[in-house]
Amino acid sequence: MADKLIIFDTTLRDGEQSPGASMTREEKLRIARQLERLKVDVIEAGFAASSNGDFEAVKAIAQVVRDSVVCSLARANDRDISRAAEALKGAARARIHTFIATSALHMEKKLRMTPEQVFEQAKLAVRFARNLCDDVEFSPEDGYRSDIDFLCRVLETAIREGATTINIPDTVGYAVPELYGGFIATLRERVPNSDKAVWSVHCHNDLGLAVANSLAGVKIGGARQIECTINGLGERAGNCALEEVVMAVRTRRDYFGLELGVDASQIVPASRMVSQTTGFVVQPNKAVVGANAFAHASGIHQDGVLKARDTYEIMRAEDVGWSANRIVLGKLSGRNAFKQRLQELGIAMESEADINAAFMRFKDLADRKSDIFDEDILALVSDESVSSQHEYYRLLSLSQRSETGERPHARVSFAMGTQEFSVDSDGNGPVDACLKAIESKVGSGAELLLYSVNAITSGSTESQGEVTVRLQLGGRIVNGVGADPDIVVASAKAYVAALNKLHHGPERVAAQG
Amino acid sequence: MADKLIIFDTTLRDGEQSPGASMTREEKLRIARQLERLKVDVIEAGFAASSNGDFEAVKAIAQVVRDSVVCSLARANDRDISRAAEALKGAARARIHTFIATSALHMEKKLRMTPEQVFEQAKLAVRFARNLCDDVEFSPEDGYRSDIDFLCRVLETAIREGATTINIPDTVGYAVPELYGGFIATLRERVPNSDKAVWSVHCHNDLGLAVANSLAGVKIGGARQIECTINGLGERAGNCALEEVVMAVRTRRDYFGLELGVDASQIVPASRMVSQTTGFVVQPNKAVVGANAFAHASGIHQDGVLKARDTYEIMRAEDVGWSANRIVLGKLSGRNAFKQRLQELGIAMESEADINAAFMRFKDLADRKSDIFDEDILALVSDESVSSQHEYYRLLSLSQRSETGERPHARVSFAMGTQEFSVDSDGNGPVDACLKAIESKVGSGAELLLYSVNAITSGSTESQGEVTVRLQLGGRIVNGVGADPDIVVASAKAYVAALNKLHHGPERVAAQG
Repeated sequence: MADKLIIFDTTLRDGEQSPGASMTREEKLRIARQLERLKVDVIEAGFAASSNGDFEAVKAIAQVVRDSVVCSLARANDRDISRAAEALKGAARARIHTFIATSALHMEKKLRMTPEQVFEQAKLAVRFARNLCDDVEFSPEDGYRSDIDFLCRVLETAIREGATTINIPDTVGYAVPELYGGFIATLRERVPNSDKAVWSVHCHNDLGLAVANSLAGVKIGGARQIECTINGLGERAGNCALEEVVMAVRTRRDYFGLELGVDASQIVPASRMVSQTTGFVVQPNKAVVGANAFAHASGIHQDGVLKARDTYEIMRAEDVGWSANRIVLGKLSGRNAFKQRLQELGIAMESEADINAAFMRFKDLADRKSDIFDEDILALVSDESVSSQHEYYRLLSLSQRSETGERPHARVSFAMGTQEFSVDSDGNGPVDACLKAIESKVGSGAELLLYSVNAITSGSTESQGEVTVRLQLGGRIVNGVGADPDIVVASAKAYVAALNKLHHGPERVAAQG
Repeated sequence: MADKLIIFDTTLRDGEQSPGASMTREEKLRIARQLERLKVDVIEAGFAASSNGDFEAVKAIAQVVRDSVVCSLARANDRDISRAAEALKGAARARIHTFIATSALHMEKKLRMTPEQVFEQAKLAVRFARNLCDDVEFSPEDGYRSDIDFLCRVLETAIREGATTINIPDTVGYAVPELYGGFIATLRERVPNSDKAVWSVHCHNDLGLAVANSLAGVKIGGARQIECTINGLGERAGNCALEEVVMAVRTRRDYFGLELGVDASQIVPASRMVSQTTGFVVQPNKAVVGANAFAHASGIHQDGVLKARDTYEIMRAEDVGWSANRIVLGKLSGRNAFKQRLQELGIAMESEADINAAFMRFKDLADRKSDIFDEDILALVSDESVSSQHEYYRLLSLSQRSETGERPHARVSFAMGTQEFSVDSDGNGPVDACLKAIESKVGSGAELLLYSVNAITSGSTESQGEVTVRLQLGGRIVNGVGADPDIVVASAKAYVAALNKLHHGPERVAAQG
């Protein structure tokens, strides 16, 4: 039988670490449920010790996910590892992933530790983790740029202390496939107890090679776990994209000869959910999940496809979850149908009151838009963060107008805590006027880094606009997402959502790449 | 001395073939000038025989570009090759690139030809092309999936007939690096006269491996030309991304040991221009040219970067043309400053009247927006297609309003040919109302496939919104782009621009991937 290739998804940890991609506990839970439907083997749910918010998110995911292993990252110290173990208590299967940098550059400049100190800390950390959990992964950060003799010593010790997975990060995305694959092969040859652990690859995409490097780590190096994220989400140019690496192994099974547990038909729904939740758009010419990935328009190609589908297609769109008919609900759909669809989408509401509130927003939307798609429902639920009574800033109402030759104008009513305000402003455009009106009262001083709109679902001008607003304040970056059939309203919602994130968001420690 | 690696850019041919990416002659000229500034070795300017529009674009580019070789694609027949030669007449250095499919599947299902017929046609085509031009490239379409014995015979003959470059396309993006590199190496070994031609790679990104495959073709296979596009633009998941492959070869010179002529500092300007012109967004986590590619936000990384820049950075943002200060013009800038900036941006205006018209639009914008960036100027020039007297549809004025609890409403005045109309509509949002108003008179019946907005430049709510509208009508797909500080106006401009493209656009034959 062919070897199994373990898919380790780190969308919620390394992906979420990307500037602007931070998610709430509820958003992470929703994505974790989708990852479980996608049947990934391991879900890295977060970095429990980095903040209370991360701890709570890991804990919630550990309690809900049953089929995938749930993992938390931890630096190589007792406190971090204890926090990880505590957050993972309720998990059906738990993994602690501990790491420490091993490259000369990182040890000297970042950790300010000698190699011997790093060696000792790695040893003690793995030992401590293994006492708390049977499933322990160890990563030497910047491993690919580490001295190979030193690295072999550290890895041998980590395995001897009980690490069951050894992961070799190309933290800065510097590797090329042949060399990275050879590096993994050399490590496995030289570390005497290498057969006692599963070897894993973790690649970054700075040179556009994360997928190819991961595959070389598997094919040339003999690794049997790939760490990856949905849409390649991650810092800088991102991580190895799950959808690409999975479809490469599947499509070229003749070459890789490996088994996968992933249900590929859940790839596109997962991609949409991550993109919609984080506000990180997927470019049309993105492999597998881009809007154009399966389109053929040029005359010759179209002709070719008609004549024989495999002339130009090596995968089928249906296999990765693209499907034509996604209309699910409309004006006449009842509360039960809505509730059921929420469940199918993996959206758990905490109380009947929450379901009722969401259903009211659904009815309101259905009055204005005839076909309600899954994406609309996701947007509706995301909107909670704006309309919920628990939030500090809430949008109440808005009116705006613009006319050629006159200055656009907006009037916005919103709540800050228990107080309500109505403010007016003009601006360069109606969106500018709205945001200026809100800011005139709030005075956040946040800088607008990015503003983008995508239509949720296509095929009609009746789509909702989904607006992403990225704000920066004092070194923190947050994304706010808002959806509405009225693009100006969606923009105001997104701005308010971003302000709420700035208002709440805890500072936290971040982790290795 | 190290070997030179030839960078062959096909943004204007294979990239432009992507559904919705079609460009006008002026847009292509502007991009060709930027490609020349980028110092690519070869610019594939189009497929002259596919339409009159393509012919004119290739001709115009051939007359303007001096430093790069200008190339036209041609099917393997005398008519196509003659048209290519004619279009290239004014070029300083010209190349004819002829192709025919050689895989069993493509020969049988698409060409309906026997291998012997294909062999003969390839031979005669190269012979004919070489009589017209010293620089001839030959591509066996779907070469990677072709029978290797047959392929070797075809390639040997192509070289004997005078082909100076042999390009091996992985047309459907099926290759993996090791196998593709090995395939090129085997061809070069087995074709007896292989040393008489430069070998070239042309990879598609369906499995996310285009860059890695291209590099393997060079490193393992010994190819010395890479065909690629800016932003990886291209059908389906696109082509090999120029920015990634160039930066991989540059950053890992220790491994590749090759010289490049490309001026990397022109990469980001080229990326922006292509994205803005086609309306194809670049995702934030895109290597090299994505908005996040050089961002570091997480606590540890930031700390690391401060301590030593190379802890996490393997390239410098400045090296690829990211620069902080891009303010160029404002309200007080005069006509000469504006004209000079146009020239620096490679925008050639045909007459003083055109410059005057553009300058008036610039002054109008500067009245509404304090800082005018390069991107604003590009958008201004793109807007020509909406406001120009030559266009069939022209937007004259617009007013709109929306208010919570009421149905959004718009009134649009526009011209169709010599007639002017004012139309009203309501809609789900103000954009929907505008587009419905226009469509109520035009009655195009086009389907809206995509609607997206990006702020041009960041850092302020005063940015212009740049809207891309993608329409489909009877199998044709066009993108319209519109920019304005008022997002609703930008949307109407984009819709009108797309209608104009549908109105004008000639049908044309498309080409190999």
